[in-house]
Amino acid sequence: MIDSVKVFAPASVANLACGFDILGLAMEAPGDEIIARFNSETHQLRIASITGDEGRLPRDIESNTAGFAAQQFLKSINYSGPGIDLEIHKKMPFGSGLGSSAASAVGAVFAVSQLLGGQWSKHDLLPFAVQGEQQADGAYHADNVAPSLFGGIVLIRDNQSLDVMHLPVPEDLTIAVIHPQIEILTKEARSILAPTVPLKDLIIQSGHLGSFIVGLYTEDYERIHRSVIDVVIEPQRARQIPHFFTVKSIAEKLGALGCSISGSGPSIFAFCRGETHAQSIAERMGDIYGAHGIAVDVFSGKINTQGVQIIP
Amino acid sequence: MIDSVKVFAPASVANLACGFDILGLAMEAPGDEIIARFNSETHQLRIASITGDEGRLPRDIESNTAGFAAQQFLKSINYSGPGIDLEIHKKMPFGSGLGSSAASAVGAVFAVSQLLGGQWSKHDLLPFAVQGEQQADGAYHADNVAPSLFGGIVLIRDNQSLDVMHLPVPEDLTIAVIHPQIEILTKEARSILAPTVPLKDLIIQSGHLGSFIVGLYTEDYERIHRSVIDVVIEPQRARQIPHFFTVKSIAEKLGALGCSISGSGPSIFAFCRGETHAQSIAERMGDIYGAHGIAVDVFSGKINTQGVQIIP
Repeated sequence: MIDSVKVFAPASVANLACGFDILGLAMEAPGDEIIARFNSETHQLRIASITGDEGRLPRDIESNTAGFAAQQFLKSINYSGPGIDLEIHKKMPFGSGLGSSAASAVGAVFAVSQLLGGQWSKHDLLPFAVQGEQQADGAYHADNVAPSLFGGIVLIRDNQSLDVMHLPVPEDLTIAVIHPQIEILTKEARSILAPTVPLKDLIIQSGHLGSFIVGLYTEDYERIHRSVIDVVIEPQRARQIPHFFTVKSIAEKLGALGCSISGSGPSIFAFCRGETHAQSIAERMGDIYGAHGIAVDVFSGKINTQGVQIIP
Repeated sequence: MIDSVKVFAPASVANLACGFDILGLAMEAPGDEIIARFNSETHQLRIASITGDEGRLPRDIESNTAGFAAQQFLKSINYSGPGIDLEIHKKMPFGSGLGSSAASAVGAVFAVSQLLGGQWSKHDLLPFAVQGEQQADGAYHADNVAPSLFGGIVLIRDNQSLDVMHLPVPEDLTIAVIHPQIEILTKEARSILAPTVPLKDLIIQSGHLGSFIVGLYTEDYERIHRSVIDVVIEPQRARQIPHFFTVKSIAEKLGALGCSISGSGPSIFAFCRGETHAQSIAERMGDIYGAHGIAVDVFSGKINTQGVQIIP
């Protein structure tokens, strides 16, 4: 029997401009590393250590996103074996709009399930990871959890039944993501949204969503370019993010296939074509914040089609 | 040089539950028949005759959907040849939600373009047919025109630029359509709609739309079944259509893949699997109106993947 399992759970970009609460994708980096290890001295699930969180995450199982997710999974299988310790290595920022809590929840559930033999499919694990993330932001939705778990670009028909499907990932599609170090909490970002949307905007947004999906299926980058547009959420949230429109305009000038807010922000993503393109766009987007004295993390790369995985 | 051209322009079902104003499909029947014929005695475009309209359609070119569409096309090519007469044979009901005016506009533009040599693609003709339909209902949108013109299942990203794309049509997908003979004008059906939509309904509707498109690409009939749902428009328009919920419930009991209002109604469509299935569901749906003494037209069949075409 293995004694411990270490996994990498990737960051994710939700919404993707035209799919508020229903679209998300996984990034190659950053992501959390989670270790699950048997501890035969106890019969409990414990959080043995957390690094990289500056002491801000709760240590008790019930309140911790990763701990709660793993605990719900263990309850569901009536686990009664030896104790399990979790080590959580946060390697990505909180409140960044990059699915930090989702990654921790996914990592914890996956690590524990692999420690116990791995006989559960990722699909089996999805509800527990979603419950874990719900601890963090109060909403039961899978637009960060599902991509972090499965990888790729994911569409969620219905968050209640977790009807999740995989969209094709065009070969050359890459992503540039920057995280200006300004914190926005998802709960707050959600509370500023108007409760209603003009019907005409629903029509526009639906057209873009449909067209984006067709663009993925047909590998039509021009179509993707015309479709990664958000007339509903971005106009409301952009004002929370200083320099957003400058960054967006730079990305567009440099030929990005679309640029919008990642999740509830403040991170900003741009779809690009090829890794070199994504890297140079990410750097130029990041430079805007640098020039204003705001620290910024810069990421770029392919879409991560693997999702959470065991690492050495 | 040919002397006359006769075409068939099919009826269409718009919205398809989850794609208000952006989705539509073409039916195999009914449809309008339009003849374009040179008339060298004049230099004008004229409406020579209309049948099947009970005298209700305007005869002057500027006010008639078909006439206006053909005229706009002729203007765009600076036509100065012999006069052209249009014969319009209405073979489908008005105000039915089956794209009657769209079929006439499509048929007229296509017949005239074929009469003149046919060197224009259907794509070239689209804007003129849309302008024609706009004469009838005031809105510039292609969700009936594009399917009647191209055939198949069509998605419109943006009605202004007429960015139209074709969705796959699964082999076994069929449609049952009934038209209870109650007239609802599109303008009125539009005016009862609330100008805003709850954000949560936008999320639900978007999830269904995305999932429906994935269902078409993957030929996943169960997914289509879970996705042909309208939480935004149907609840508002259904009250205009007597017995709607009885009809819908019958269709669902008989295993339809989804049932909703066709366009702005009062026609009702159901997605089915196979032609026999569609036929029996259509008959049973029609029976509800029969039992209430309301005349009803009943149609069923495959999706028409050809669109407007020349007929003998």
